[in-house]
Amino acid sequence: MKTLAFFVAAVFLAASFSLAGEPPVSSETQGCIGCHSSVTPGIVKDWMQSRHSKTTPAEGMAKSELKRRISAKEVAAGLKAKVVGCYECHGLNPERHKDNFDHYGYKVNVVVSPGDCSTCHPVEAEQYSGSKKANAWGNLQYNPVYLTLVNTVIGLKQVSDDTITMSPPSHFTRQEACFGCHGTKVEARGMKTVQTAMGAIKVPDLTNWPNQGVGRLNPDGTKGACTSCHPRHSFSIEVARKPYTCSQCHLEPDVPAWNVYDESKHGDILLSEQNQWNFTDVPWTVGEDFLAPSCSTCHMSLLVSPDGSVIAERSHDFGARLWVRLFGLIYSHAQPKKGDTSIIRNADGLPLPTTFTGEPAAKYLIDKQEQARRKGIMMSVCKGCHSTDWTEMHFAKLDSTLQETDKMTLAATKLISEAWRLGIADKSNPFDEALEQKWIKQWLFFGNSVRYSSAMTGAPDYAAFKYGWWDLTNNLQEMRDKIEMKKKLMHEERSEH
Amino acid sequence: MKTLAFFVAAVFLAASFSLAGEPPVSSETQGCIGCHSSVTPGIVKDWMQSRHSKTTPAEGMAKSELKRRISAKEVAAGLKAKVVGCYECHGLNPERHKDNFDHYGYKVNVVVSPGDCSTCHPVEAEQYSGSKKANAWGNLQYNPVYLTLVNTVIGLKQVSDDTITMSPPSHFTRQEACFGCHGTKVEARGMKTVQTAMGAIKVPDLTNWPNQGVGRLNPDGTKGACTSCHPRHSFSIEVARKPYTCSQCHLEPDVPAWNVYDESKHGDILLSEQNQWNFTDVPWTVGEDFLAPSCSTCHMSLLVSPDGSVIAERSHDFGARLWVRLFGLIYSHAQPKKGDTSIIRNADGLPLPTTFTGEPAAKYLIDKQEQARRKGIMMSVCKGCHSTDWTEMHFAKLDSTLQETDKMTLAATKLISEAWRLGIADKSNPFDEALEQKWIKQWLFFGNSVRYSSAMTGAPDYAAFKYGWWDLTNNLQEMRDKIEMKKKLMHEERSEH
Amino acid sequence: MKTLAFFVAAVFLAASFSLAGEPPVSSETQGCIGCHSSVTPGIVKDWMQSRHSKTTPAEGMAKSELKRRISAKEVAAGLKAKVVGCYECHGLNPERHKDNFDHYGYKVNVVVSPGDCSTCHPVEAEQYSGSKKANAWGNLQYNPVYLTLVNTVIGLKQVSDDTITMSPPSHFTRQEACFGCHGTKVEARGMKTVQTAMGAIKVPDLTNWPNQGVGRLNPDGTKGACTSCHPRHSFSIEVARKPYTCSQCHLEPDVPAWNVYDESKHGDILLSEQNQWNFTDVPWTVGEDFLAPSCSTCHMSLLVSPDGSVIAERSHDFGARLWVRLFGLIYSHAQPKKGDTSIIRNADGLPLPTTFTGEPAAKYLIDKQEQARRKGIMMSVCKGCHSTDWTEMHFAKLDSTLQETDKMTLAATKLISEAWRLGIADKSNPFDEALEQKWIKQWLFFGNSVRYSSAMTGAPDYAAFKYGWWDLTNNLQEMRDKIEMKKKLMHEERSEH
Repeated sequence: MKTLAFFVAAVFLAASFSLAGEPPVSSETQGCIGCHSSVTPGIVKDWMQSRHSKTTPAEGMAKSELKRRISAKEVAAGLKAKVVGCYECHGLNPERHKDNFDHYGYKVNVVVSPGDCSTCHPVEAEQYSGSKKANAWGNLQYNPVYLTLVNTVIGLKQVSDDTITMSPPSHFTRQEACFGCHGTKVEARGMKTVQTAMGAIKVPDLTNWPNQGVGRLNPDGTKGACTSCHPRHSFSIEVARKPYTCSQCHLEPDVPAWNVYDESKHGDILLSEQNQWNFTDVPWTVGEDFLAPSCSTCHMSLLVSPDGSVIAERSHDFGARLWVRLFGLIYSHAQPKKGDTSIIRNADGLPLPTTFTGEPAAKYLIDKQEQARRKGIMMSVCKGCHSTDWTEMHFAKLDSTLQETDKMTLAATKLISEAWRLGIADKSNPFDEALEQKWIKQWLFFGNSVRYSSAMTGAPDYAAFKYGWWDLTNNLQEMRDKIEMKKKLMHEERSEH
Repeated sequence: MKTLAFFVAAVFLAASFSLAGEPPVSSETQGCIGCHSSVTPGIVKDWMQSRHSKTTPAEGMAKSELKRRISAKEVAAGLKAKVVGCYECHGLNPERHKDNFDHYGYKVNVVVSPGDCSTCHPVEAEQYSGSKKANAWGNLQYNPVYLTLVNTVIGLKQVSDDTITMSPPSHFTRQEACFGCHGTKVEARGMKTVQTAMGAIKVPDLTNWPNQGVGRLNPDGTKGACTSCHPRHSFSIEVARKPYTCSQCHLEPDVPAWNVYDESKHGDILLSEQNQWNFTDVPWTVGEDFLAPSCSTCHMSLLVSPDGSVIAERSHDFGARLWVRLFGLIYSHAQPKKGDTSIIRNADGLPLPTTFTGEPAAKYLIDKQEQARRKGIMMSVCKGCHSTDWTEMHFAKLDSTLQETDKMTLAATKLISEAWRLGIADKSNPFDEALEQKWIKQWLFFGNSVRYSSAMTGAPDYAAFKYGWWDLTNNLQEMRDKIEMKKKLMHEERSEH
Repeated sequence: MKTLAFFVAAVFLAASFSLAGEPPVSSETQGCIGCHSSVTPGIVKDWMQSRHSKTTPAEGMAKSELKRRISAKEVAAGLKAKVVGCYECHGLNPERHKDNFDHYGYKVNVVVSPGDCSTCHPVEAEQYSGSKKANAWGNLQYNPVYLTLVNTVIGLKQVSDDTITMSPPSHFTRQEACFGCHGTKVEARGMKTVQTAMGAIKVPDLTNWPNQGVGRLNPDGTKGACTSCHPRHSFSIEVARKPYTCSQCHLEPDVPAWNVYDESKHGDILLSEQNQWNFTDVPWTVGEDFLAPSCSTCHMSLLVSPDGSVIAERSHDFGARLWVRLFGLIYSHAQPKKGDTSIIRNADGLPLPTTFTGEPAAKYLIDKQEQARRKGIMMSVCKGCHSTDWTEMHFAKLDSTLQETDKMTLAATKLISEAWRLGIADKSNPFDEALEQKWIKQWLFFGNSVRYSSAMTGAPDYAAFKYGWWDLTNNLQEMRDKIEMKKKLMHEERSEH
């Protein structure tokens, strides 16, 4: 379909882009653009309006400390003076990349990884590598309890002779369900031929691809996907700072962060006024660039006061300002010490941060002092707009809510334990029966909603009627009702014999 | 309430609007504006900022092929040189319009229909007329299975003596529930008098009005409502191209297209950057006008590459780029050959695209070759930004997901079939009992969510916890649980006698 | 952390801001800014870009009647000629404010209340004070039926010996769930010391704070929080007019106003085009400033036609244009006469606007004449864009839908009444059992969704599958099913003995 004329025009376009003098585009990248501006024009144009296409690492490094978007102190000479083009990223570290292949004479990698991005952004890559996000694949895969839950939920079921049988989930379903967010294991297993608009070409045959999950295992051995939040090929800080990015994964019913934000006053103000704000400046100035926080404001961005003083340091370890974990697996608990949570063992020997009755696996969780330190950072962010008293009262409320929602989970745990004891449910797989799934909802959906609503300054509907207290309460009653009926039926059966 | 002064001012406004020379407004339309700029000022102003108020068909036709927004090769002399005003649309085809009436000396139609729009947009009207959307009214009304479902869901229920009885739905509830999207049958049944700000006037007495459903039956005999997506009276291409328009109907839990898009990376990028994009240009240029697709990008818009080559032709037949039907009625299947799906008969003689156990009514569905052709068009759109391999892997995943979700539906069908066999549920109406409604949810809500998430490049929550695999799995367990308890109770009752 | 240098810089900033001549900032406010531009810079900057920071009451009062944003005919001399700064609001009415305290030599209130805002906005404060919103705290707290529902839903539950026991909700959970929207009782109970960036300071010890609920009881004895909709410290009319503000509370499943709007054609147009509209002009001109309504357009804003004629007067009594109440407590009914609904007594002596079977407490509700008057105001708004016939047909549909959804509630009430009669459920608390909670959902969630969809010009999914007719129907079947099984079990138990 593509004619030679288009190809020539594209090469000319690429050449003129570079001939203009500034910004200096490497000859390799000019080669990429030569074809790709007609083969995949969308991503070329996306890159052309990015900062990467207009700035060299040298220019980036010349900025003052607070304004720098690049954390490398030094960048290799070959990269330093050219804009960050296709080949500058896709051509990095070929020796480590199992997905490196010869593409029209260029040795390129299909997958650009945090290992590659660390060439210019080593601090961010380092912070990220220790986060729970970077470990999101292994945290499911290497945790037998979570993996049982995964397999139970997304495994294929079949009915025969009145029984439901289950087989393990397909790699496709893993890829688009749980591991859509957590990331997949992308491996190169040789080459394959694809028929493209330019004819047949050979490309690496990758497993579990495409995927941009936060904990993706890359063919170079690194973990994560920077494109989860900085989508290709603009790698925009604006996109990453807007809450729509986080909402790709942090959604009701299990992690209702976006929904709670959307309902909150912070969300109201941002949604109403965002087009008058600045989402690109570095550092990000409270009151000048924005008037209400987005997700990244509170959780990771480098924030300064209009007078230039630093309110909070940037961190790409997303837990850096978090002291408690709200998810409730099964109960809320202090943040894990390490991003790899599969190493945790609770008092029952299970890889869970608490026991089924709520006792924390303290050895693997941060202590009170570290909790206080992190909470202090978060409170500094709040105090950019709120008084000390306001802030302290807000978090006192959260403390209370964590205790209460944990008690509501414990109530459900007592009911399911009774069912297990009576033989109404079978604990061998604690996740696969209808009654057990009500218990799961208590801590995986309903407790979480109340906690997120409490933590994120208020989404009263998520505390009340939308997966909140209403459901915590109703679910307990439904559990008790079901247990009661099953007990009666069991009694009838027995008395019959 | 309106004074003479306002009326005079309004007429003057209308006159001065025209006196300015360009654009030329017909005298009839000036007459309309004379009153309506004070009677219904909102729609007059809406029109005034539209393209229709500023361009004549002659100007529209003078544009080059790709830039044309008007597909007529010729337009009647009386219309050609005037802007497209009130009377140019509401005065068309009076002989066909049962809703034509004398309004202060002008013969106008209340309802402007696709038949009228086809005066300037015949290709679009023709494409639309063959679509499932244009046939959306009849596809429910003339399909006894679907109509049973409709009547069961929205029919009024009453409880007496411990029994729930059901009467057919009112025309009002039909109008605002199912037929709010599918469209109503709008007929003129004589005239009636209404008391307006200008005094009592006689207007046609229309049934099931107001309605803008996509398959509306109009008083001129045509089907559809262009205003479903191009709302009055700006008829904006920008609005139609933005995803909020599609979300008027394509919403969870039965058609979660908007919700899946909203969570997807495409949605993230659009929501973050849309104000820097161009939603009005024709043709629509990948990479220049936009950097991530909206609904219309993939499904209908005329797309070109920055080099001017056509990536995909425009089509107002919304199925033109679709090869499979994800809804799952009851199983996913090849797209129907015709927009009128009420003609389909499956192997059991039912008007469904598959049997209850999944066998397709192949005669009425497109064949593999046509499927491949359409898939090819869609893949061309993907390849505007994504590599061939990426695109092929994406659709391989979808193929697998369709099979798996169909199996999850089959599992539920086996359970409900057992219930029917045992007399636990009564198949005479397969949709009206609590247990049957769990079966419906499996294919109408949960299977769909997983499929849409898979097809639209990823909304992992809709594949997992939000009406996805979690619900597919839990619903099966709930069904089995209910059947088990009912079987035991049935056994007890029997053993008692 | 803050150094002296910052402090000096901040004072200089504040001074220079005022030295520029215009606008005149009071010396007290300069004092506030002196510290707070470094202590809480976000809110200082927020205020700096507000109208309050740029306009004096005198300037506001000088505008023509329709353009005025200030309803006071006279403002005290001391306030009149200065911009509305920190101290102008936080320093008002110290004698009435139990939360007044000495703060670095200034006597300030923590909580600014409607009583304080009424200094310049007396008409709005007066209208608001009579609304159901202003009475939202007492309407729950002083209504024993509603309070039972509140306590049942958000009370802490514990399981012991197979029984669920309930304790009253904590003040924290009240604050963030029901009373997050309804407002809390904020009282000053002496002073306390907080450790701030400026050192230890003494501040009032407030109960149930922070909170911005619409019916908040303030330490000065007034009711409400203007900041519910005009968030601090820009107090923007733009934010209040955008629908995101209302969505802070009016959300599915109990009050799905935002969700219905979001799906509606009005919502589609606003979301697509809002950045081209004007949300700040007073008055608000139909067709010029906006082309589709937001929540405030229909419910409260001062609207004019492009010719300057008034379409609807502004009102901060949010029920001023409402004739029916859609919530359905338990059935839809005429609007209450007074904002304080706790005074209502129905024929059964209960504080509900209808009996459990639907008979209205007519004495406390507006009569048909007042209903017609209010409906007339709302219809004037509709007619800004829609014909009289369109508008009348729309509301005829709503009338029918109210009757039908009330009948669907009555059907559920008959089922639960049978359960109460048979002893399957215990009416002593009509809200605490699983079966009763299904009955609650019928009128609190599902009936409401259908009604909102009908009233707000169409969200067909909310009428159909999303908490709509599907759920109204399915819920009845689930109730009947549960009752049937419990009856059978009861029968078995009896026949056993």
